Amino acid sequence: MSLAIISPGRDPQPWIDAIRKQNDQLEIEVFPNIQYPEKVEVALLWQHPKGILADFPNLKMISSMGAGVDHILSDDSIPEDLPIVRIVDEKLTWSMTNYVVMGVLNFHRQVTRYQQLKKDRNWDMSDPEIPVTIGVMGVGALGFDVLEKLDFMGFPVVGFGFSEKDDFPFPYFPKEKLDEFLKEVNVLVCLLPLTADTENILNKSLFEKVNPGTYLINVARGRHLVEEDLVDAISKGQLSGAMLDVYRKEPLQEDHPFWQNEGIFMTPHIASVTNPEAASPQVVENIRRLESNEPLMNLVNRSRGY
Amino acid sequence: MSLAIISPGRDPQPWIDAIRKQNDQLEIEVFPNIQYPEKVEVALLWQHPKGILADFPNLKMISSMGAGVDHILSDDSIPEDLPIVRIVDEKLTWSMTNYVVMGVLNFHRQVTRYQQLKKDRNWDMSDPEIPVTIGVMGVGALGFDVLEKLDFMGFPVVGFGFSEKDDFPFPYFPKEKLDEFLKEVNVLVCLLPLTADTENILNKSLFEKVNPGTYLINVARGRHLVEEDLVDAISKGQLSGAMLDVYRKEPLQEDHPFWQNEGIFMTPHIASVTNPEAASPQVVENIRRLESNEPLMNLVNRSRGY
Repeated sequence: MSLAIISPGRDPQPWIDAIRKQNDQLEIEVFPNIQYPEKVEVALLWQHPKGILADFPNLKMISSMGAGVDHILSDDSIPEDLPIVRIVDEKLTWSMTNYVVMGVLNFHRQVTRYQQLKKDRNWDMSDPEIPVTIGVMGVGALGFDVLEKLDFMGFPVVGFGFSEKDDFPFPYFPKEKLDEFLKEVNVLVCLLPLTADTENILNKSLFEKVNPGTYLINVARGRHLVEEDLVDAISKGQLSGAMLDVYRKEPLQEDHPFWQNEGIFMTPHIASVTNPEAASPQVVENIRRLESNEPLMNLVNRSRGY
Repeated sequence: MSLAIISPGRDPQPWIDAIRKQNDQLEIEVFPNIQYPEKVEVALLWQHPKGILADFPNLKMISSMGAGVDHILSDDSIPEDLPIVRIVDEKLTWSMTNYVVMGVLNFHRQVTRYQQLKKDRNWDMSDPEIPVTIGVMGVGALGFDVLEKLDFMGFPVVGFGFSEKDDFPFPYFPKEKLDEFLKEVNVLVCLLPLTADTENILNKSLFEKVNPGTYLINVARGRHLVEEDLVDAISKGQLSGAMLDVYRKEPLQEDHPFWQNEGIFMTPHIASVTNPEAASPQVVENIRRLESNEPLMNLVNRSRGY
């Protein structure tokens, strides 16, 4: 039995070191130099070449290297009964929430405006705060933590998601109430999983319904956002601006219009990076559970898409 | 009996309206047009002209219009037995904490660096976070709230102050342990009251002791900071930068070096502005207590200076 790491363009060494610390007996192979494909029972994946898993006849489990599994589910060649697990990492949640709270505060307290006033040597004490209500789309582990932290800080918060929720501790709007949700908020945070339901959800038609001047934060996936619609919505004032960490094509092309759009604060997909040290115990524990026939942790529901 | 509002350069009308809502019987006079000085028993002050209170022979209580009382205590002509009260305003605390947390996150997540990378169209995913430990100087209502919120967000925090504390819920260093406190932290937040002990505390000798690259946030008073020492400490790399809301002379002079210092993010004393609506009930309640000989709220200890 062996584990295959398949993450083209990402250095596998920190993962190898971290997994070895947990279990020094485990055989680890790294794509594309896999010597005994028939021994591979577990694949640890990030952006693997589609179809490649057919090379491993005895594969019993797939683990994502991060929270997202859209890069796995988009490979139609994966057998339907093969279990897929993902990483739920507290450090990942912590970083993501900090990044989102930073975006909320920078909008609420108008960082860009004060940077401009400084350049202009202008002492203007008027209207120091923009009142905000924050709407979080996607209320899984990441979205819930954002709601909880902002609530503790004393901000009004509202959640939105694709499933029904009973006894949710914050105001919550399910998918059929998207319009009502949008009416409540002027900061919109996207933390949805990428599924057929959510792809392109941040588009022209949504931007036409938001409160004028709403601020957008997308930290989920680039494909949630129709990028040309964002540029348009900012120029029309439907949105006052956006903070983006993810893009349809990464790295962002050099001639992409976002680079020079003054309404956009952007970062190169670093809002939250999975830490192999923190994530490896989950991978190793799931291998143990697989071998002893126990229920897997953080198992993905493939019909739901996350 | 009447209340005199003495706040040159600040519009008294929002205070008059807010106080009237609480008590429509109270006589209110506004400096410099005070008709019956002998009837004035309470003075509501912000930056009053020194010595002016001698005009009111029957003064029984002074209230600050904000949390700070340094502008009152610096007037030597005020009789020693005259009680001075100040405003403790939750909204003021809320705004202050949000401002400080914004500064912490912008340093931790390197907003300035990412703004530059965007200008350069540079996709650089390396080292997205600067690890931080936040030291809060001054652990009164404001400092305590900052500690509590940052702790809830999962950041390591440490307090420093001029009094001894038993059972303080966070690591705490009293004044004789300033050097040890500075060794613990790389973000330094000043929320001290302005007293003889604390004036100029943020100076060359302190900056020589901090961890290299420490980030300074001063939201207390301009006179806590020796401004030329800050410029020097940034240029030497002792500090990586600063977020400032207060200055020795406000408004900041047009030729002040801060305006063009790239290491400084600055705002025009708007981190937290006392809201008359929120503060007036405390003023009116203290007048009631004064008249019925009950202990006053938020009474200032003049030997302590706050």
